[in-house]
Amino acid sequence: MSVNLRIPGPTPCPDDVLQAMSRQMINHRGPEFREMLGRITPALQRMFETKNDVLTLTSAGTGALEAAVVNTLSPGDKALVVSIGVFGDRFADIAKTYGVNVEKLSFEQGTAADPDQIADALKKDGSYKAVLVTHNETSTGITNDLGSIAKAIRGVRPDILILVDAISSLGSVPLPIDAWDLDVVFTGSQKGWMVPPGMAMVAVSERAWKAADEAKSPRYYFDYKKAKSYLDKGETPWTPAISVYFAMDLVLQKLEAEGLHNIHERHARLGQFTRDSVKAMGLNILAKDERYASNTVTSVLVPDGVDGPSLNKMMREEYNTVLAGGQGPLTGKIFRIGHLGLVTQEDLQACFDALEKALPRVGFSSPVAAR
Amino acid sequence: MSVNLRIPGPTPCPDDVLQAMSRQMINHRGPEFREMLGRITPALQRMFETKNDVLTLTSAGTGALEAAVVNTLSPGDKALVVSIGVFGDRFADIAKTYGVNVEKLSFEQGTAADPDQIADALKKDGSYKAVLVTHNETSTGITNDLGSIAKAIRGVRPDILILVDAISSLGSVPLPIDAWDLDVVFTGSQKGWMVPPGMAMVAVSERAWKAADEAKSPRYYFDYKKAKSYLDKGETPWTPAISVYFAMDLVLQKLEAEGLHNIHERHARLGQFTRDSVKAMGLNILAKDERYASNTVTSVLVPDGVDGPSLNKMMREEYNTVLAGGQGPLTGKIFRIGHLGLVTQEDLQACFDALEKALPRVGFSSPVAAR
Repeated sequence: MSVNLRIPGPTPCPDDVLQAMSRQMINHRGPEFREMLGRITPALQRMFETKNDVLTLTSAGTGALEAAVVNTLSPGDKALVVSIGVFGDRFADIAKTYGVNVEKLSFEQGTAADPDQIADALKKDGSYKAVLVTHNETSTGITNDLGSIAKAIRGVRPDILILVDAISSLGSVPLPIDAWDLDVVFTGSQKGWMVPPGMAMVAVSERAWKAADEAKSPRYYFDYKKAKSYLDKGETPWTPAISVYFAMDLVLQKLEAEGLHNIHERHARLGQFTRDSVKAMGLNILAKDERYASNTVTSVLVPDGVDGPSLNKMMREEYNTVLAGGQGPLTGKIFRIGHLGLVTQEDLQACFDALEKALPRVGFSSPVAAR
Repeated sequence: MSVNLRIPGPTPCPDDVLQAMSRQMINHRGPEFREMLGRITPALQRMFETKNDVLTLTSAGTGALEAAVVNTLSPGDKALVVSIGVFGDRFADIAKTYGVNVEKLSFEQGTAADPDQIADALKKDGSYKAVLVTHNETSTGITNDLGSIAKAIRGVRPDILILVDAISSLGSVPLPIDAWDLDVVFTGSQKGWMVPPGMAMVAVSERAWKAADEAKSPRYYFDYKKAKSYLDKGETPWTPAISVYFAMDLVLQKLEAEGLHNIHERHARLGQFTRDSVKAMGLNILAKDERYASNTVTSVLVPDGVDGPSLNKMMREEYNTVLAGGQGPLTGKIFRIGHLGLVTQEDLQACFDALEKALPRVGFSSPVAAR
């Protein structure tokens, strides 16, 4: 029996994608690689709904956060960082590390950012160079209303930089980059893309390129301009994680065949199914307003009297189901169920069936009648 | 007929290593990953002949160069960068990017660095904080006599930091890190390790950890201390390229079974075979003194009247053999033959057989009698 890997990334990968990972190496400075990158790049642009340049980096998602900061900002620049959880906080920490003057606008764990408060902050202080915002906060299972946030920002500051951590949303939930006029938007291969980790993909707007011309933060490995100059000849500046590119090349064909709208619908349906199912079990989700509950990951409150880590351990060891725990201040308070990428309603049902068996064994008495 | 991939990385990978790349994803925060990293780390320490901490980064080799600089040096620190080619120059460029006061000691392309000149430079100026040096210069096919260099450095400055780019040497040619008292030494998975690209591995000495405590260069993704704090619980700070870890876990078992001494002998034998073979064809190698010719990659001078890129193109398109060209100032002047990792004498002989057929077709008249 295969493991039911229900964490919000890395996600399980389809068999043919895994087979692509086992292809023999090729020359990353040769025609075969150039042809492959020549397919991957425009496919990503279509999936990202953007005409902006799309760069690929050999890196975890955190490298893409760092790249967004160092390529567009200088020490002393003022940035508004909107945080609704661990990954918003990380974006702020990285900016601070590089000397950016960070003003953090935090919202309570389990809530989404309020576009009006962001607009107000920008009205109050006209010196911000950039807004840094998380689209889908993986640590809480909340999806910000990024369309409204972008509109609110542009209403006050038409030319400010908007840098978006879309690691666990892009490709899975709607995020039309050009329609929302976003400057730097990035994701990672191990999320809804159903590819093993190792590649980060980033869309860079004209406005961001202008900022890169002026940005004084030191950068080398993550330098967008170096990546662009090599992309123009079909390559990457440094030796890429070739196997991950093989997998991405294949998966993009599969995803485009499915169609972006259908992919979004699939995630929306499974997100709703997850929320409905856990609530039917008498559990509560962290999201205070379900309109902002994520369609890629659901945070479930650990019921009173239950030890979260013990539940996850039992689920893993006795029910072959791998859940994610809480991070940061939510450690032990929530468990998380990933439902992005390669996942079916049957996989989720198997997870809920296991939860129904495991929960009473760790001290949970459901307030709802047994089904 | 499979391609004869004769570039100095990525190298071909064994079939079982490629199969390991196609394993389904696991939780990088779970026990299975921790057990795997718990095998990989001490195996790397044994292969590196070091008791120092060994960290793994999800990155190309260039990321490891950057990490060495930002974790140990501060803006304004003075560093002596020993360069014998493109990758020595890159190490210097990265240090300059981060504000390090770089003094570059360059040696002619095709020669090794002179330990005495390095010692003299350190005698002349006692303010150097670090020496940055390439062990094996992939762009020229020269292996520095790192043991003598380290001895010369320590003779003048027992406590200076020695940062070594060993990307295309470590694991393939002798490099006893502790015996030579080196502080930061790093390599990449796609070299003699016979694993696809995506992982850099770095050994960090006590002296380097002390430097990390003081270093003021900004860093986040490549921060050694973050990597160490997660390694202490069996994890990596950011989502690792899990598939590459699967492959590394397997290959280290294979390499340890072969034995480090045997691996070094294998590379020495194939390096000698390559040099002997190309010279027998009437070709000349770039290395001015064969004692410093690399046992992982050989640079061959493009003969007069021959166009290097045309030769490589014909070799690829008509003889299924992929060679590397020259880089930087050597573009068009050399071609390079990789003989590290998964390569047999038969693979190399097939390459030379193809060269013997291709060379006359691109205008080469051998000065030696046809065999």
